Amino acid sequence: MRLRGRKGIRENLEQQQELVVLHPKEYKGRWAEVFGNDRPIHIELGMGKGQFISGMSVKYPDVNFIGMDMYDELIRRGSEKVRAKWAEYDGSEPQSVRLALGNIETIEEFFAPGEVERIYLNFSDPWPKKKHWRRRLTHPRFLEKYRTLLNDEGEIHFKTDSRVLFEFSLNAFSAVGLQMSDITLSLHEDGINEAHVLTEYESKFVGKGMPIYRCEVMVGEAALKRYQDRKMDMF
Amino acid sequence: MRLRGRKGIRENLEQQQELVVLHPKEYKGRWAEVFGNDRPIHIELGMGKGQFISGMSVKYPDVNFIGMDMYDELIRRGSEKVRAKWAEYDGSEPQSVRLALGNIETIEEFFAPGEVERIYLNFSDPWPKKKHWRRRLTHPRFLEKYRTLLNDEGEIHFKTDSRVLFEFSLNAFSAVGLQMSDITLSLHEDGINEAHVLTEYESKFVGKGMPIYRCEVMVGEAALKRYQDRKMDMF
Repeated sequence: MRLRGRKGIRENLEQQQELVVLHPKEYKGRWAEVFGNDRPIHIELGMGKGQFISGMSVKYPDVNFIGMDMYDELIRRGSEKVRAKWAEYDGSEPQSVRLALGNIETIEEFFAPGEVERIYLNFSDPWPKKKHWRRRLTHPRFLEKYRTLLNDEGEIHFKTDSRVLFEFSLNAFSAVGLQMSDITLSLHEDGINEAHVLTEYESKFVGKGMPIYRCEVMVGEAALKRYQDRKMDMF
Repeated sequence: MRLRGRKGIRENLEQQQELVVLHPKEYKGRWAEVFGNDRPIHIELGMGKGQFISGMSVKYPDVNFIGMDMYDELIRRGSEKVRAKWAEYDGSEPQSVRLALGNIETIEEFFAPGEVERIYLNFSDPWPKKKHWRRRLTHPRFLEKYRTLLNDEGEIHFKTDSRVLFEFSLNAFSAVGLQMSDITLSLHEDGINEAHVLTEYESKFVGKGMPIYRCEVMVGEAALKRYQDRKMDMF
């Protein structure tokens, strides 16, 4: 991404302290304080332009959402999108959303063990070259970090249009012994599946009839238990 | 499949007792006697016209192969294909192959617990209607049967061109707690993968550029152990 007028962007972000978190490390273990309540925290790793997190935040107002990205320009765009979504929704300022600037490589510095209830990975970079596979956000080394951060209800929800990233990810979830569920190779086959909030990228793809791959991963004990109770209904 | 001249077919099969097994129930627990040795037994459930099992049997002459199908016409065609393959290979009669007539619905009547080392499921019927899903050969009720039949080294190798059957099957393996590995959504993407023996159906599909989905499932303790030892090399 080409970055223009960085100084202006940073000043803009500094004026939005109720929505934008420029130094998320400072809040490790204290996100409940940031939100002022103990509601579950769902985070999106690599939030892009913020369409997904803004849509999710108004669909699930009782959940605290944190969108993360390493590019301040994306945080700025996301902040506009989140504010616009809440203005349209009920005219209020967004209370249950934070957009955090940070590199997911060091995610364990941003959240304490058990502080997160759900991780969303949407259309993560597929890093096609083998020497870059370890940067994939579903690489086993990241999955071990996520396992630590997630709480008893913890889940990972993953979707991508990249066939190679999806097959890599299925093998990775399997290799580290994580329980997968609701695997689909064609999320919007019969038109847009309204149960899911779309990312901006996804909206474009779906219109072209490209397949979207998705699965959920149960990490916490309570999440696993609920899956065990419902799984046979799928067959 | 239209069945012609059934009487003639049955007589033909009865004359091939060294290759064709018309009543496999009689050999439950005694397949080592049938083959005259203790080599591992690999079975293909729904062998179709026999291209896969005949190719596998000459590629792996130290493995005993049993191809199963419920249609006697397919057993007859398969017997011709197996004989032709061995004639071409070394001019001998096939010693390590049997083609067995039977309905997989009652597979537990054909094999004793632990008698089988590997199950091949190739391009099984996708049974698209929900009311027929329980007939899918990767339905959890079949997976439980397979788990019983397989030995310590036991694995299931599954491939299909049906996206809906593959996603169903991934969810089914996952639901019954079976360890998957080597999941691929594009088996022959870069031309035919020579490591794999193709079915007749598969040969046609690959030429048209259709994706083939494949995965392996580790069932036996020794198979799981070997997977644990190698799995991190994939990432």
